[in-house]
Amino acid sequence: MIYNIGVDVSGGDYAPKEIIKGAILAKQEFGQEITLIGVKEEIESELAVCKGRIEDFTVVNASEKIEMGESPATSVRRKKDSSLVIGTELMKKQQIHAFVSCGNTGAVVCAATLKMGLIKGIERPGIGLLMPTAKDVALVMDVGANIDPRPVQLLHYAVMAAEYSTVVLKKNSPTVGLLNIGEEESKGSEFIKNTYKLLSACSLNFIGNIEPKDIFTGRCDCAICDGLIGNITLKVAEATADFVGKSLVEAVKKDFLGFMGLLLMKNSLIKFKKRFHYAEYGGAPLLGIDGIVIIGHGRSNALAVKNAIKVAVQEAKHDLNTQIRRRIDEVCQDSGVRQVPAG
Amino acid sequence: MIYNIGVDVSGGDYAPKEIIKGAILAKQEFGQEITLIGVKEEIESELAVCKGRIEDFTVVNASEKIEMGESPATSVRRKKDSSLVIGTELMKKQQIHAFVSCGNTGAVVCAATLKMGLIKGIERPGIGLLMPTAKDVALVMDVGANIDPRPVQLLHYAVMAAEYSTVVLKKNSPTVGLLNIGEEESKGSEFIKNTYKLLSACSLNFIGNIEPKDIFTGRCDCAICDGLIGNITLKVAEATADFVGKSLVEAVKKDFLGFMGLLLMKNSLIKFKKRFHYAEYGGAPLLGIDGIVIIGHGRSNALAVKNAIKVAVQEAKHDLNTQIRRRIDEVCQDSGVRQVPAG
Repeated sequence: MIYNIGVDVSGGDYAPKEIIKGAILAKQEFGQEITLIGVKEEIESELAVCKGRIEDFTVVNASEKIEMGESPATSVRRKKDSSLVIGTELMKKQQIHAFVSCGNTGAVVCAATLKMGLIKGIERPGIGLLMPTAKDVALVMDVGANIDPRPVQLLHYAVMAAEYSTVVLKKNSPTVGLLNIGEEESKGSEFIKNTYKLLSACSLNFIGNIEPKDIFTGRCDCAICDGLIGNITLKVAEATADFVGKSLVEAVKKDFLGFMGLLLMKNSLIKFKKRFHYAEYGGAPLLGIDGIVIIGHGRSNALAVKNAIKVAVQEAKHDLNTQIRRRIDEVCQDSGVRQVPAG
Repeated sequence: MIYNIGVDVSGGDYAPKEIIKGAILAKQEFGQEITLIGVKEEIESELAVCKGRIEDFTVVNASEKIEMGESPATSVRRKKDSSLVIGTELMKKQQIHAFVSCGNTGAVVCAATLKMGLIKGIERPGIGLLMPTAKDVALVMDVGANIDPRPVQLLHYAVMAAEYSTVVLKKNSPTVGLLNIGEEESKGSEFIKNTYKLLSACSLNFIGNIEPKDIFTGRCDCAICDGLIGNITLKVAEATADFVGKSLVEAVKKDFLGFMGLLLMKNSLIKFKKRFHYAEYGGAPLLGIDGIVIIGHGRSNALAVKNAIKVAVQEAKHDLNTQIRRRIDEVCQDSGVRQVPAG
């Protein structure tokens, strides 16, 4: 089956050029249908510049843009002709199978929730981030959609992350850990302790509290946390890797032998950087909404956009939301959680 | 003036050997008085093994040990003859000028608070961590003493971190940032937004919200956060640096040229590792208590212990707590915060 992936051409620090370039790469590599959503003239002229063929794509005009700094709720309400609003509406009407955006994250979450609605039983959507580990990848969720959640919302995230790992990543009985500052049950904030209780009572493969290092060693498949901790984790990891990398090159360059060594290992360094660069992981699935939305990094280049489209195709191939719908009731019953009606 | 630094010989993953070795190094390098607090026979036999001279040290017997996994409050209450309880009592009685421990962090905080009391106007003690930056060092506070604080307690941390930076690190009008997931005032949890309001109203050099990358670039001298975010930040940074380092060596080794390159840059790598290793930064000051306590990393080796003692001597040389006492009232008045009587 061919899937139709909608791409927000107006969102991201390097939009529209890198988005268009990424879409061209994805078209060549995956051969799926791609719908480009943005300012029509911009799309046409960028396609010409990047030597893409207009006949390879469906183009949907969206005259407005939601900028990175804008208030999510206000911009989504006011800019009805923005690529974000139009893209999420196309998803709702099932005219596309999935929607990819590298734009204002808050606005993507807001538009998706408002236009598509949530899966029955889920209170709030969450962003799952695929992080490279020593073994394979771990899904960290939530990394920024839900800053002040209730414990039951983290139980929902655990269910969704485990289903994503099972259905899309093909992991068998994926392990779920609660991201904390120590392994003991007594560690962490009141919020984390209450979440721990819910997770221990459910039928997921819960392995208890985990520490940040356990994400990297691959000790757990799904690391569950609130959006504040998750976003800080993601940003500290990015900043540390960047700082260590730059300082290392600086330090080594000062020494003649070190500099020669650096030249010799150039190829392996490029391969290494490629393996861990966020561009390789492309996009973060926004889970809990009644549709498929992939959020790309704001600084996405063409490669990152191509890989975000790949993540969208992978999710579209599996009926993840039906599985989530089925599991959410079961798990919440185990935990003795009374479900609220879907909002 | 000669300072007398008390050292907890029974705390830390590599106690007592690495603690004793660190104390011997510190004695040789700084020439201050050092009081070793722990099981007397262990201290004597380790000193003999490590070729330290018993006459260089004062030895205070403490027959009990508080282990890393023990409940802080219970262990401090029950183990009256532990090195932690005796050390903090010696500090209270001013028989030592500062106390250094690499033991159970929660128990150190608990013993220090209980035995020494808090500075008037401070509600809760906080741990300040010195992190290397592209410019010099930044003080991140709190990194784990206070997991569920009130906003006013973060204002207190900001005052203490700024005073530490001014008095001990000799920085002129140090900048204070609130660690968050974005720069805009609207970002973060309700707790962070409320803290932002307090910090904007005070007379500190507050530069607003900062993101994790700003710590590394040296954009701010003091990064203020609750103990949960601070501890996660510290652990993610450690885990990322470790993971990137190990994966890099793995990747480079697979390639012949890369491996040769690695050999050539060995010396610069050793220097690099030294610059950023926590052992070089030694100890984290526990601020807010009416005394001087330095908390070392649980995995401290001799070098880390020596450097923790160095941090203790530096703080002892300055009358930091008098400055904090003076500033806390001023700043809280600016912010319109009603001070509670010291507990």
